[in-house]
Amino acid sequence: LVKREVTQVFTPGTVLDTELLQPRRNNFLAAVLLSGNHWGLAYADVSTGEFCTTQGSDRAELVAELNRLQPAEILLPSEAPDINRVLRPGEAKDQLPAELPPQWCYTLRSPQDFQAAEARQRLCQRFQVKSLEGFGCEHLPLAMRAAGGLLAYLDETHRQQPVPLQNLSTYSIAQYLFLDPQTRRNLELTQTVRDGSFQGSLLWAIDRTTTAMGGRLLRRWLLQPLLDIEQITARQDAIAELMANSSLRQSLHRHLQEIYDLERLAGRAGSGTANARDLAALRDSFRTLVSLATVVTATQSPYLQALAHLPPVIEQLADTLSAALVDQPPISLTEGGLLRPGAYPELDQQRQQIEQDQQWILNLEAQERERTGIPTLKVGYTKVFGYYLSVSRAKLNQVPDDYIRKQTLTNEERFITAELKEREARLLAAQSHLFELEYQYFVQLREQVAAQASTIREIAAAVAAVDALLGLAEVALYQGYCRPQMTRDRQLQIRGGRHPVVEQMLPAGFFVPNDTELGTSADLMVLTGPNASGKSCYLRQVGLIQLLAQMGSYVPATSATLGVCDRIFTRVGAVDDLATGQSTFMVEMNETANILNHAGDRSLVLLDEIGRGTATFDGLAIAWSVAEYLATTLKSRTIFATHYHELNQLATLLPNVANYQVVVKELPDEIIFLHQVKPGGADRSYGIEAGRLAGLPPVVIQRAREVMRQIEKHSKIAVGLRKS
Amino acid sequence: LVKREVTQVFTPGTVLDTELLQPRRNNFLAAVLLSGNHWGLAYADVSTGEFCTTQGSDRAELVAELNRLQPAEILLPSEAPDINRVLRPGEAKDQLPAELPPQWCYTLRSPQDFQAAEARQRLCQRFQVKSLEGFGCEHLPLAMRAAGGLLAYLDETHRQQPVPLQNLSTYSIAQYLFLDPQTRRNLELTQTVRDGSFQGSLLWAIDRTTTAMGGRLLRRWLLQPLLDIEQITARQDAIAELMANSSLRQSLHRHLQEIYDLERLAGRAGSGTANARDLAALRDSFRTLVSLATVVTATQSPYLQALAHLPPVIEQLADTLSAALVDQPPISLTEGGLLRPGAYPELDQQRQQIEQDQQWILNLEAQERERTGIPTLKVGYTKVFGYYLSVSRAKLNQVPDDYIRKQTLTNEERFITAELKEREARLLAAQSHLFELEYQYFVQLREQVAAQASTIREIAAAVAAVDALLGLAEVALYQGYCRPQMTRDRQLQIRGGRHPVVEQMLPAGFFVPNDTELGTSADLMVLTGPNASGKSCYLRQVGLIQLLAQMGSYVPATSATLGVCDRIFTRVGAVDDLATGQSTFMVEMNETANILNHAGDRSLVLLDEIGRGTATFDGLAIAWSVAEYLATTLKSRTIFATHYHELNQLATLLPNVANYQVVVKELPDEIIFLHQVKPGGADRSYGIEAGRLAGLPPVVIQRAREVMRQIEKHSKIAVGLRKS
Repeated sequence: LVKREVTQVFTPGTVLDTELLQPRRNNFLAAVLLSGNHWGLAYADVSTGEFCTTQGSDRAELVAELNRLQPAEILLPSEAPDINRVLRPGEAKDQLPAELPPQWCYTLRSPQDFQAAEARQRLCQRFQVKSLEGFGCEHLPLAMRAAGGLLAYLDETHRQQPVPLQNLSTYSIAQYLFLDPQTRRNLELTQTVRDGSFQGSLLWAIDRTTTAMGGRLLRRWLLQPLLDIEQITARQDAIAELMANSSLRQSLHRHLQEIYDLERLAGRAGSGTANARDLAALRDSFRTLVSLATVVTATQSPYLQALAHLPPVIEQLADTLSAALVDQPPISLTEGGLLRPGAYPELDQQRQQIEQDQQWILNLEAQERERTGIPTLKVGYTKVFGYYLSVSRAKLNQVPDDYIRKQTLTNEERFITAELKEREARLLAAQSHLFELEYQYFVQLREQVAAQASTIREIAAAVAAVDALLGLAEVALYQGYCRPQMTRDRQLQIRGGRHPVVEQMLPAGFFVPNDTELGTSADLMVLTGPNASGKSCYLRQVGLIQLLAQMGSYVPATSATLGVCDRIFTRVGAVDDLATGQSTFMVEMNETANILNHAGDRSLVLLDEIGRGTATFDGLAIAWSVAEYLATTLKSRTIFATHYHELNQLATLLPNVANYQVVVKELPDEIIFLHQVKPGGADRSYGIEAGRLAGLPPVVIQRAREVMRQIEKHSKIAVGLRKS
Repeated sequence: LVKREVTQVFTPGTVLDTELLQPRRNNFLAAVLLSGNHWGLAYADVSTGEFCTTQGSDRAELVAELNRLQPAEILLPSEAPDINRVLRPGEAKDQLPAELPPQWCYTLRSPQDFQAAEARQRLCQRFQVKSLEGFGCEHLPLAMRAAGGLLAYLDETHRQQPVPLQNLSTYSIAQYLFLDPQTRRNLELTQTVRDGSFQGSLLWAIDRTTTAMGGRLLRRWLLQPLLDIEQITARQDAIAELMANSSLRQSLHRHLQEIYDLERLAGRAGSGTANARDLAALRDSFRTLVSLATVVTATQSPYLQALAHLPPVIEQLADTLSAALVDQPPISLTEGGLLRPGAYPELDQQRQQIEQDQQWILNLEAQERERTGIPTLKVGYTKVFGYYLSVSRAKLNQVPDDYIRKQTLTNEERFITAELKEREARLLAAQSHLFELEYQYFVQLREQVAAQASTIREIAAAVAAVDALLGLAEVALYQGYCRPQMTRDRQLQIRGGRHPVVEQMLPAGFFVPNDTELGTSADLMVLTGPNASGKSCYLRQVGLIQLLAQMGSYVPATSATLGVCDRIFTRVGAVDDLATGQSTFMVEMNETANILNHAGDRSLVLLDEIGRGTATFDGLAIAWSVAEYLATTLKSRTIFATHYHELNQLATLLPNVANYQVVVKELPDEIIFLHQVKPGGADRSYGIEAGRLAGLPPVVIQRAREVMRQIEKHSKIAVGLRKS
């Protein structure tokens, strides 16, 4: 048996064991450093070795970034007395600085590790550099200190063998389209609002990746859409190339199916936790990569070309592992059977000796039958007593003197001999020696792999990108997406746009496509229409198309010309939060205020039912004033869905406001939802009709109609609202 | 080493391993059988042995019951081709019958196991009975068939050793206060709506239990409040007795801290998966129970008395385990060290032999030094080669002939002798024999415990109840709860009521208590008031107080007289569900229709902002009509919170409607929220004020005020609504 020692402390953010990790999601450990409104944020995935850091000057951006990462654990320097305490989600909110959301798991750490000098030294030492200039954070103190604090924690939790990290990479959140937490939530990017399930999310609708690496990368692309048109175009080009070549797609797909999670396998090899199956998986993946390189030789896109020239060391590793490892090794490393016979002479010799002893015991039965003249004598084995010679009660008188009595059963007597026990002991010792040797040779193999961990990771990244792009190409083909033309102006023009998730939930052909035009003549669209007619769906569809385009994907439309946005804002639905004393309406107003304080003329703003949570007049007044502000001051491209039909008057007052409605066909007894968005304002909401469909008792519906007629007789609101 | 075989198939609902289970929640496996609108539902927790079944005739009740149980896995008979497939949450909705929520994990099963004859036979055989009469389901075919189908699955997944189940218990959902899923959700009984966290839930606020068993039982009480006044009173009496006796409380608390999770330990012993630490935990718990029995001798409540007379067999088991097991056994069962020296002569003998051999090897160094005349000769040990004799290079010429060369190092040579290897082999064999014997004796001990599993479970249930009641007494004392007087009439009278969760979130003394009076003169309260003034909080506080009272707890109020309710309904907030095509308003209307179709004069109905999701006039008309219907036709006790101030006119038209408002103090520049509920209707909502507090830009606020003045000038809705 191999000796075991405690060499690691496991915490939610430092797990390396693949079985505890979700294959298609990164498991991030984050470290946060606050200084006034400024902040530093570093994060690492110990299973893939990724290690990044950034800093910023707006706490809301920090929260958004944490929301994107969904870290399993967040380190936080603290002067609190119970340092190193782990705050489980929701625990001890009072120990957290304002605005840090309590739903994550925080670990309080000594501020010492986050000090500039200490952090710099630790990072330089780990990565064997003299300055952090090359990593881009020499002059970003908060980013550097956060990274140093994170590394200190990893060093502490993985004492024996340092976590194999990739080089530190500094990024800027200004490189990416900014999505605040509620927008990420409202657009249902990775889970639905209603029940938090993956099915029904945008990622669910577009993820056709084959490998777990590809799945993780696609998730990252989705949560970090691009701002740079050239980067977007590069992805579009790759997708176009893949769409045009079906045999390339099929061949890639076949190969990708044979490639295991290289990123995490490299991590496990590097940290000394890989077992023989992990190395076998690497061996098989390397072989596939060799063959894959020939598949992509004739391609154009740099994404595909990245796989055409495999580093020779990978091929060498494939050969080494093939020669040494058996085809399907067992999980246990300490019970032998790992290494191929013939690969190591020393092992073969040991095996031979074991075989001889086993053979001797096998021969013993015949030999002893002859010697004693007992034809029924048998050699047996039990776990408790080991090997024995069994003689039936009737033949006991024929037992020789050198037999030692060991156990008496009803009909037989069991014996051993000195020689038998000696052989048995030798066999046992030889076997345990063989296992030990196999283990040692295996560790050597693993170290050979570990030495190439960073090369393996580079290839893994290239494979992941190809996988993600191949998946996007498949979606584009089978769902009929188009390549959006990306521009630097404010145009947002979509023809035949569809909601990428809802269209897949409906039978083919059932989804009604709609056009959108913003940023050219009109900036703000007032959208009215009956309940349940699809206003919310339309609103989100526009946001999702813009987002897909900026992650480099094709989009569900017949054609689209899209100016790059700096931010997408949404305000739809809300739940109140009694615990923090926020009413639904206050939550709504907070979110609205956030939008009005941050949106600009490059932003896309999607507002659903502003002003709904308060009294009629208050709500209408707020909705009106917010819409005016967006159209005249901020000039954001905005879709403003509302039940206040009074807002249709805005279009007559402001030149860049246009009215649209979702139309229905009204029959005597029912209304038919056409789901078509057309110019013009609606004048009815059919709320009572919706109540009827939902099953309100007929007498209630009847009475509601009477009340409605009474109200209509006596009211005319919203006259004279021309802005002075 | 002990041989391992695959003897169990693990599925989400059949896990026995304590480490995979949450200690304070049951892990339920459920089986559902549908027949038109009728249904049967059985469930079991294999870790505690609980096994219950019921049937009903309304699918909504089934969904509510499943929501209460939150099963880890649901079995469903199906004719689908891929039988035995597990549908992960959200997967393959189309394979599920309508209305069964897709967020759980379903396992499709052959209808065979659910057939009446087969199910009855299987149940009778398992529990060794001739008829199911005694279990109460002989004449409830759907309940019986569901239970049979569940048992068939357990038999299949646990082939080797049947899961130790308690007797089947048939219950009726009519015994309990009915809570539909949205009410359970809206009242935040076990998790918050906003982020699903435990902190901020009612259970969080009242759970002061010490043991995991007590925690699970309290959760069950919370989700299954009672209807029977006698049962409620029994719990109140126990709480009263505990509150009056602080030394009893302290002593109970101290004892409970020493009691492990008896329910699950009994289950693990019964299923043959308990390790030595589990038995040690049982031993320590039994000892504590012996001492606990004396603590409760002088008590009155049957709940407490249940612990006064411990079955003698438990005391015997405590003695047996104490004598046999070491104080702190290791986790592994196969590496010895489990059993106390002196307890088993056979083991002692074996240990003695091992010691002799060890001593022989220890003596060898001195002996061989003398024989060879090499003073530096050493006996060493490596994992690979075992014991050896080490001689320095300089003394090689003095090595005797019987030394066998084994390994050459730089400065020393290592040897073995035949005798040394023989002793080593004997030592190895003897040790593994000792481990094997220890294991066998341990298994015998475990079987002795398993034979008493049902007795242990009975005690566990009694301990859990005392723990839950002790926790409720602590909450009542420290939070200043009162004992509600329960009546059979429709009265709902609360003096100084508080929200049990929110009051604990605020600094002591900050929460503003309020009175409530319903069911005597007024049945329906129209509640108006500004945004964020606390209407939602007040609404839920009344629901939570009623619910706490019906689970037998004291309530956060200065006094309360409460008629027992048959159902509590709530309709607050909503999120839309694009995936199923439901708009927010449709969800709201569906839930409202459900209430109007099920509520009666014994129900408590809590409605927040009905009609908010549609146009103003539609919404007001629906709100008016729903309120009228509740007050005049259903006569449910209702709180109707609304922003439609027009509804205040209802009170002048209907005798059993009363107006209440949450009052604020209006200053020139701000409003102060007083959180006081007083008679009378509010006429303003201060929505714009709320927007200002939330940080809307000042120019937006200014403009909203102007718009508001314009609207008010031109409108008078809600005149002439007297019901004809």
